Amino acid sequence: MIPQWIIERKRDGHALSEEEIRFFINGFTLGEIPDYQMAAMAMAIYLKGMNPAEIAILTDTMMRSGDVIDTSAITKPKVDKHSTGGIGDKVSLILAPMVACCGVAIPMVSGRGLGITGGTLDKLEAVEGYRCDLSTEEFLRVVDACGCCITGQTGSLAPADKKLYALRDVTATVPSIALITASIMCKKMAEGIDSLVLDVKWGAGAFMKTVADARILANSMVSVGREMGKGVSALITDMNQPLGRCAGNALEIRETLQCLAGEPCDDLMEVTMALAERMLLLAKKAPDAPAARLMLQATLDSGEALAKFKEMMRLQGANVAMLDEPDRLPTAVLQKDFNALRGGFISGISADHIGRACLTMGAGRKRTDDTIDFAVGISNLAKIGDQVEPGQRLLTLHANDAFKLEDAEHLVAQAFTYADEPVARTPLVAEQMG
Amino acid sequence: MIPQWIIERKRDGHALSEEEIRFFINGFTLGEIPDYQMAAMAMAIYLKGMNPAEIAILTDTMMRSGDVIDTSAITKPKVDKHSTGGIGDKVSLILAPMVACCGVAIPMVSGRGLGITGGTLDKLEAVEGYRCDLSTEEFLRVVDACGCCITGQTGSLAPADKKLYALRDVTATVPSIALITASIMCKKMAEGIDSLVLDVKWGAGAFMKTVADARILANSMVSVGREMGKGVSALITDMNQPLGRCAGNALEIRETLQCLAGEPCDDLMEVTMALAERMLLLAKKAPDAPAARLMLQATLDSGEALAKFKEMMRLQGANVAMLDEPDRLPTAVLQKDFNALRGGFISGISADHIGRACLTMGAGRKRTDDTIDFAVGISNLAKIGDQVEPGQRLLTLHANDAFKLEDAEHLVAQAFTYADEPVARTPLVAEQMG
Repeated sequence: MIPQWIIERKRDGHALSEEEIRFFINGFTLGEIPDYQMAAMAMAIYLKGMNPAEIAILTDTMMRSGDVIDTSAITKPKVDKHSTGGIGDKVSLILAPMVACCGVAIPMVSGRGLGITGGTLDKLEAVEGYRCDLSTEEFLRVVDACGCCITGQTGSLAPADKKLYALRDVTATVPSIALITASIMCKKMAEGIDSLVLDVKWGAGAFMKTVADARILANSMVSVGREMGKGVSALITDMNQPLGRCAGNALEIRETLQCLAGEPCDDLMEVTMALAERMLLLAKKAPDAPAARLMLQATLDSGEALAKFKEMMRLQGANVAMLDEPDRLPTAVLQKDFNALRGGFISGISADHIGRACLTMGAGRKRTDDTIDFAVGISNLAKIGDQVEPGQRLLTLHANDAFKLEDAEHLVAQAFTYADEPVARTPLVAEQMG
Repeated sequence: MIPQWIIERKRDGHALSEEEIRFFINGFTLGEIPDYQMAAMAMAIYLKGMNPAEIAILTDTMMRSGDVIDTSAITKPKVDKHSTGGIGDKVSLILAPMVACCGVAIPMVSGRGLGITGGTLDKLEAVEGYRCDLSTEEFLRVVDACGCCITGQTGSLAPADKKLYALRDVTATVPSIALITASIMCKKMAEGIDSLVLDVKWGAGAFMKTVADARILANSMVSVGREMGKGVSALITDMNQPLGRCAGNALEIRETLQCLAGEPCDDLMEVTMALAERMLLLAKKAPDAPAARLMLQATLDSGEALAKFKEMMRLQGANVAMLDEPDRLPTAVLQKDFNALRGGFISGISADHIGRACLTMGAGRKRTDDTIDFAVGISNLAKIGDQVEPGQRLLTLHANDAFKLEDAEHLVAQAFTYADEPVARTPLVAEQMG
């Protein structure tokens, strides 16, 4: 087979055969097909699309480019959750221990943050000693011991995706449904899970700006997962404002601990519960959603879920004293409230501006080699629909540098819009599939 | 400017600004923008197109990536001809001396063949001693001395095109109107000419399979040439069968000499005359086409055109004795007629099969580093519409290897189709622009 003839077929809008996809992707992974041919192919895929069967083969080929974790020794049903990413999204940290308490195994391979979106691993690394570089053997041992583990992608997991993602990033081929689907699903499928729940975000702070766009991506991922013989559900959830009340690594660990301790956590807990319910249903641990919710609530009420989180962290090397006494978590030197400039009802909170303010203070990476300041971020964040008086606190900034704090203030000042009349909240879960 | 943002704009179908095009192409030429970004951009251009203003800027940028020949010392009007390529096309060799005899300067930079299409330089190299590697100074000296010169592209002419063409070839982005137009026109515009006549081939043996497709390419090139301040005409000519009666390098030199000596040369001379007429009109050397044709015919009748061709060849180092006595040109050891398998009217002669037969015998290159056998090829080729008896000669094969001759016979056997009724000939010149 000649690579340019395969590119030509996709360029002309034809569906590629299994043989063509495997030849091209395996050749690219091995370095036999050069970057420039893959770049032309990626642009052709972006502009001409792929059908579900093609995407399933692409996903399978990328998954098989590296190790597929053998979880056969774990007898519990193995379920994971994946989110397309948003500001303040610490759902995984709360959900994994809750669901593990209900007898499900959660072998979760997670990622780091880049740009304004925070990464689950970065949040966990705010806790001293926590290791996300577990070997496959260590990973499976933690899952076996406590039911859940959150670690990073090993070098041998889906190397085709690692190479292709770096190329897409610099060739304007990231926002392709086919390529996003394959990139997400190949890594999740390599975890050796039975089922997967997808949290596809929509809104101003998400990659997908409308429910319609989110639905296309969700359908594509559900269809590929099922094609590959897995149970898959998807929820389309709201990211028109940050999720929860905190953004920033150590601050989000504090919020996680509060949620697990059963303190009211509003929208954050609602989304977490909705996703965790689907996991219990896929794992056949509950007959229906209300029953699943009762089981999950019990893990909070009994303190079991919080204990499970600490156990997982301990098994991954964390200094659990920091979780027992959250004041010992990294704490910023400067804390300053940002207050409402006028009274009224909050009609919008730009997740983009909140995310950029956190990034400015050092909570994230502008480039992959930046280091993170775990202490900084935002807490006490108001919510869309809140009625506020002039001067009332909208959020608290946490910074370690006065200049960066000032820059962040300018950014958060642009994040809020107000209305004179009460504002309807958009539903947290817009749609559900599977 | 960020390369991927420019790719993104073209991907989304926007027109690029002059600044964006120059930044991207210059960056690519200098190696600052890597091949993979150019490959993604080329595919986006292929699928989303460019408007005439964008193509003109692309052409100008590619032209300025290298030297633009300073022809200001030549006082005659400077006109060139370019053909999109076909089998048996030796028009340049006949046309250049004829037009030069009428007081026009023809500074022609030509190319080599690859695949089944023959290259003008390869044909001329069948004549011992002929040099196509002239320096710019030598090139101008020959044009000044005899009015015409046919040489190869120097390394410093449009290096952006050289680099981009190699990339397009392996990324399925060759047949893009925008990229073809810029590739052809940047090199022609770098010759320092005032005007250009384009021979855009259509038909089974051409790149453009229909008149409609040829018209789109012709319009694009005429529009870009005019945007750059040049006089440009285009003819859309027939390539449903090979042009003339010979294909193969030395054989085509023989046919050229016959045409220049005033022997009847059918379709070949008709196309040559039509193109040469446009050149005289653009150069304002004739008031109208009939007057131009009389002038051109006179150069044949007087023997001036033949003498001019020999003079040009002598100035470029050729052993003119080979032209005075064509029997001294490279001659194949084996010559074998291929005869009609049935009687009737010839309804089709596949230029593709004729070209592949020549390639098989060694007349062309399968890869850029192949060497050419100048002696081999096809002569005495019949024409569509000819009435033939069973066993009547359709062509003569010239080969230096019996096995290759046999392979070529199998190919030419597939080239001919027949009809029982007389066959209408398609017009040689389908359309004319400018």
